[in-house]
Amino acid sequence: MAISAIAQACDLVIFGAKGALARHKLLPSLYQLEKVGLLHPDTRIIGVGRAEWDVLEYAKFVRKSLEIFTKEPVDKKLWEILRSRLDFFNLDVNETQHFKQLSEKIDKHTRITICYLAIPPYTFSSIFKGLGEARLNCKPSRVVMEKPLGSNLRSSEVINNQVAEYFNESQVYRIDHYLGKEMVLNLLSLRFSNSLFSANWNNQTIDHVQITVAEAMGVEGRWSYFDKAGQMRDMVQNHLLQILSMIAMSPPSTLTTNCVRDEKVKVLRSLRPINHSNVRDTTVRGQYTAGFIGGKKVSGYLEEGDNNNSRTETFVSIRVDIDNWRWAGVPFYLRTGKRLQKKYSEIVVYFKKIPLNLFQESFQELPQNKLTIRLQPNEGMEVQILNKVPGLSHKHRLQATKLDLSFIDVFNQKHIVDAYERLLLEIMRGIQSLFVRRDEVEAAWKWVDSILEAWEADNEAPQPYQAGTWGPVSSIEMMTRDGRAWNEAPEVS
Amino acid sequence: MAISAIAQACDLVIFGAKGALARHKLLPSLYQLEKVGLLHPDTRIIGVGRAEWDVLEYAKFVRKSLEIFTKEPVDKKLWEILRSRLDFFNLDVNETQHFKQLSEKIDKHTRITICYLAIPPYTFSSIFKGLGEARLNCKPSRVVMEKPLGSNLRSSEVINNQVAEYFNESQVYRIDHYLGKEMVLNLLSLRFSNSLFSANWNNQTIDHVQITVAEAMGVEGRWSYFDKAGQMRDMVQNHLLQILSMIAMSPPSTLTTNCVRDEKVKVLRSLRPINHSNVRDTTVRGQYTAGFIGGKKVSGYLEEGDNNNSRTETFVSIRVDIDNWRWAGVPFYLRTGKRLQKKYSEIVVYFKKIPLNLFQESFQELPQNKLTIRLQPNEGMEVQILNKVPGLSHKHRLQATKLDLSFIDVFNQKHIVDAYERLLLEIMRGIQSLFVRRDEVEAAWKWVDSILEAWEADNEAPQPYQAGTWGPVSSIEMMTRDGRAWNEAPEVS
Repeated sequence: MAISAIAQACDLVIFGAKGALARHKLLPSLYQLEKVGLLHPDTRIIGVGRAEWDVLEYAKFVRKSLEIFTKEPVDKKLWEILRSRLDFFNLDVNETQHFKQLSEKIDKHTRITICYLAIPPYTFSSIFKGLGEARLNCKPSRVVMEKPLGSNLRSSEVINNQVAEYFNESQVYRIDHYLGKEMVLNLLSLRFSNSLFSANWNNQTIDHVQITVAEAMGVEGRWSYFDKAGQMRDMVQNHLLQILSMIAMSPPSTLTTNCVRDEKVKVLRSLRPINHSNVRDTTVRGQYTAGFIGGKKVSGYLEEGDNNNSRTETFVSIRVDIDNWRWAGVPFYLRTGKRLQKKYSEIVVYFKKIPLNLFQESFQELPQNKLTIRLQPNEGMEVQILNKVPGLSHKHRLQATKLDLSFIDVFNQKHIVDAYERLLLEIMRGIQSLFVRRDEVEAAWKWVDSILEAWEADNEAPQPYQAGTWGPVSSIEMMTRDGRAWNEAPEVS
Repeated sequence: MAISAIAQACDLVIFGAKGALARHKLLPSLYQLEKVGLLHPDTRIIGVGRAEWDVLEYAKFVRKSLEIFTKEPVDKKLWEILRSRLDFFNLDVNETQHFKQLSEKIDKHTRITICYLAIPPYTFSSIFKGLGEARLNCKPSRVVMEKPLGSNLRSSEVINNQVAEYFNESQVYRIDHYLGKEMVLNLLSLRFSNSLFSANWNNQTIDHVQITVAEAMGVEGRWSYFDKAGQMRDMVQNHLLQILSMIAMSPPSTLTTNCVRDEKVKVLRSLRPINHSNVRDTTVRGQYTAGFIGGKKVSGYLEEGDNNNSRTETFVSIRVDIDNWRWAGVPFYLRTGKRLQKKYSEIVVYFKKIPLNLFQESFQELPQNKLTIRLQPNEGMEVQILNKVPGLSHKHRLQATKLDLSFIDVFNQKHIVDAYERLLLEIMRGIQSLFVRRDEVEAAWKWVDSILEAWEADNEAPQPYQAGTWGPVSSIEMMTRDGRAWNEAPEVS
């Protein structure tokens, strides 16, 4: 499969043109792609929304968004080029006629229509229908869906059925922006080009894996949305399970889209179900109370919202077992929460203990080797090994030392590409590898639903944890029971 | 085995007190040990040699040696302490009576007698006899022998028989100063405390190993000695085979002296013999001609000496096969020479190629992972792996990157302990692990002899190589035939 460096010529139609996602992510990413010359010269960007705007007003809005959300001054020349691509179309998603008018604006012969649904899912159904009736769904059109894709298996199936009515799966791009992150993408390279790791990527040499996605922020303005979702739906079902499947997947026969997704979905289908019988042993859910982060007082979850009885979890840790030949006996521990001590994400692969400790004098128990993949901040990786401490006083005094590789240092890049830049480019290239296939979403929901139901049936409320800590004590206890401990947070904040 | 930090009280008797080894290495190392307080307060240092010196004259000599060969100003207070330990004894090794007089100077009740033979081996026999007749050989006395221990198996057996006549093997310390080097010693820690490596230390995951000890110096003042020895006897038989056995040995049951040496000798006994039938395929010998090193003109080996027909090798590279279960099919390539481009020593472990290249677009053939252990300069290690190059233009462009660990940086030590400091301390502690056992020396000679005989029988002279290069072209060709290449020399010089 040849990958063309540059994107195809597209009509990029953004539903939800005035929304937060468009302003924060899509527009700045398009600007960056313009800057590096990866947008096709003929590509157009068509904002769609309910506003009596003309293109000038839309351009003003885009310009303002760029000034706020691009991390550099907007270059005049680049802006001229980008502006010339812009158009705006006033559309009510319930008006079939509007879609037909939209269709007339679109050049289906020399450009590929991409409909980007940066808009809440309750509107999806009308949009699919509108697009279908205006024949904007015909191949090679593409449709892009942002999460949340439902709140459980059933509602996700509804959305997937709706889109399937008008679009073939090969036209559908489901965003999980973690798949666009540099270090997540690097997992494929790391795992399948290095025999040092690939030869050992199984239960013979790996003891367990930890995946941590820690946030320092609370729910901020999203309280009422978040209170219906919770950390499990918001973070685990998508991001953490996607990372897990990249770490645990078997080597695909090629790196083409469906080979990779076939292997990922096999992992998701091998997750050992968690239900009422084991939910207390394998999961911890927490909810933050008032506390301090970076020396600043922050309020508790319940104080921030309008439901004092909310049992929504803002923290989850889970012991995941993967019931397949490669991973039998190797737990994957997931941990994610809001209002934790600092923001960072990492994957830590713990190698097994050495079979015999020849260095009892120095260490009662030898620390395990571990490979840490830092997703953020300071993207990179390190391998912790033991070395002899140089010097005379004891012959075999050992010390854990780190072989380190920082991406910023090594590749000398100031700008690590934002996930949305990559994902937009891939959509415009027509490559689906970094997007989630229907069966993946549904396998993830099936597994997550079982946990959510078990929690629902359980009388226990989420355990309170003080903001600025690492979650409830029982999260630590869960590890202790297994004779393990969470990796210490990196010092860099 | 408890290791006491401090040495026992000793009478350290240095035969060859006026020689180069004593001046360059032993005295500066004793000074360093004094500095860090590791010499026992009652320890004495007795120079022995043919000179009508008294202790004052000897002290003057020691002081001068320290001023020249210690890399720092001699501290007045330390010197006072060290001087108070000194004594000198005028001794003719052929005079039995002299040994008896020496014996009277030595306190055999509160101190341990250590006879350090820093003197050519033709005198050994007389010294052993003298020591024996003066009963200075009785346990717990120790005797230390410096290389060269013979020039082949037969002559080495002669020396070993001579010492065995008067000393038990447990009293004998054969020096190979490479075993005292920080990074060589660290090989034990590295190999046996890290499951990431130990789980893979065999022919399932390792492709081959390279050991390079490159010198920039020529033979300098040692021409007539060296011309009889050659690089094979001077470097391979001892240093390179010792490193090889540390890399290749199986895990010992404990780290005690004989467990470690048992495993090392098993490796040496498993070396596939090289003889007339395979010597041309598996060895290359070279002799340097005039050239340039660091921009300076240097002369050729033949121009430096007094034998224009000399066929002595100043460069050797060898493909070594170890015929045991662990290493079957994994060649160890040794390479050492004088007047090469720069001075450095390293061990490089190449891991096997990945079974399937999923990244054909990026690399026709993926570079192998490798672990480099830098013995000198800049002691440390690095792991070369492949990572995705960050950025958008190609999805899976890979680049070889290095996870690095520099000992000086990590352990923040300005002074990496000299091999002789450690070895002297170990002798005074009475621990033999870092010394070569008789059967090791003899197994090494047996293997080396066979190569030397095959060379002798071969009509071909050593191949000339220009000083300042990496040896004869055929050394590169030997690797090419195996589909491999020598690791590039480090940039740091």
